[in-house]
Amino acid sequence: MIGIGAGDPRQVTVQAIEAMRRADVFFVIGKGERKQELLDVRTAILAAHVDHDYRVVTIEDPPRDRAIAATGADAAYRDAVTDWHDRRADLLAAEFAAVDGVGAILVWGDPALYDSILRLVDRVLARGVVSFDHEVIPGITSAQALAARHRIVLHDIGEPLHITTGRRLREEGVRAGESTLVMLDGECSFTTVPGDDLHIWWAAYLGLPDEELIEGPLRAVEGRIMRRRNELRESKGWIMDIYLLRGTEPPATR
Amino acid sequence: MIGIGAGDPRQVTVQAIEAMRRADVFFVIGKGERKQELLDVRTAILAAHVDHDYRVVTIEDPPRDRAIAATGADAAYRDAVTDWHDRRADLLAAEFAAVDGVGAILVWGDPALYDSILRLVDRVLARGVVSFDHEVIPGITSAQALAARHRIVLHDIGEPLHITTGRRLREEGVRAGESTLVMLDGECSFTTVPGDDLHIWWAAYLGLPDEELIEGPLRAVEGRIMRRRNELRESKGWIMDIYLLRGTEPPATR
Repeated sequence: MIGIGAGDPRQVTVQAIEAMRRADVFFVIGKGERKQELLDVRTAILAAHVDHDYRVVTIEDPPRDRAIAATGADAAYRDAVTDWHDRRADLLAAEFAAVDGVGAILVWGDPALYDSILRLVDRVLARGVVSFDHEVIPGITSAQALAARHRIVLHDIGEPLHITTGRRLREEGVRAGESTLVMLDGECSFTTVPGDDLHIWWAAYLGLPDEELIEGPLRAVEGRIMRRRNELRESKGWIMDIYLLRGTEPPATR
Repeated sequence: MIGIGAGDPRQVTVQAIEAMRRADVFFVIGKGERKQELLDVRTAILAAHVDHDYRVVTIEDPPRDRAIAATGADAAYRDAVTDWHDRRADLLAAEFAAVDGVGAILVWGDPALYDSILRLVDRVLARGVVSFDHEVIPGITSAQALAARHRIVLHDIGEPLHITTGRRLREEGVRAGESTLVMLDGECSFTTVPGDDLHIWWAAYLGLPDEELIEGPLRAVEGRIMRRRNELRESKGWIMDIYLLRGTEPPATR
């Protein structure tokens, strides 16, 4: 499992390049691969760093019940995700069994952060129909690209960084004294967070040619971010964005 | 500001290599540089990727009042850190002003996570005695190296990841339903966290030849981690470690 960074092909590490060069087969898991632009970036990464012969095996994702995920019911959501991963594991186990050599899976960002491939591979191994050694190569995440492009530290001095989803942000808000980094938010959940002292650092399409950055006091710029986000999503057909929220006043109670 | 990864020289990115090759001067800020082994790794990274002529300018850190940091008094701690950064900024401003060309600062891990260099450079700019453009290159953090070596995702499905310090862990513990990644902990603070259902993934010297990993139920392995940590620190004279804590039972209340 090779982390290849947030979108900028130059974010790939030497370790990732070495791993790609050892691969006989690249497995492409279907999720998200309908975005031609991301496919092109991945192709460019391979073309830039790999010149041996390799095969590409595409594994289409089974359908997923997105309606359950949207309800916000925790137990039903987890069950639906678990069932979907089991079906994915069945598909992968069959493909892995057919390989004699080294297989590689390229992962956007880092396999350790909001990516399902590691759990999927654990499920494949648990099935016991195919056995293999595996290794994880970390990659630059969009959280790090966000910080780098805004030239900020992700937290205040000695304070925590809380990384969460749009769904959990809507349930839990932003805690005093913490910086909150939000991933997987399709609904501009920052508009639901109370508080007049919050600052937001937002970015879309990090590392890609269409990268956009907006930052400022949340209540002053949230409307602009929503409008721009809608425009971009409509013109490109998809959007990837991420943001950091932090209070600008020192926490009153701790 | 170039993030160069957690210790394994192969964790450097293509973007970081390109940035190093543009540099006329490498500034080495004194903090932590007494560890010869880390200096050697840095030297090896430069030797592997850079073959133009460059200068190295070493800037010794002013002394820091570590006694205050240890008291845990938030306001005094922040004041002490702020004052220390101001003195560092004065030293850097003078060195930066003497450079005509491109300067680079290599940062362990990522400049966005528990590193002071970005705030320091902001302070240098705020002084107004020297002006320059600057760019941040993200790097693989020890948090990511920890996850990769243990081959784990840093959080449960759809759940948050809380990144914090040993000091804050002792104050706040581990919240139900969250994974807690602890950095900057010189005191084995995991031993102070209540709870019988916690699991720990621990690592020391990630990416270096002496790398060590321990994982298991916290209450079962905490003694072994403490003993091993003491042995390693005594034999090498220093230690860098990091760990992840997570409850193994689903959160009862949410």
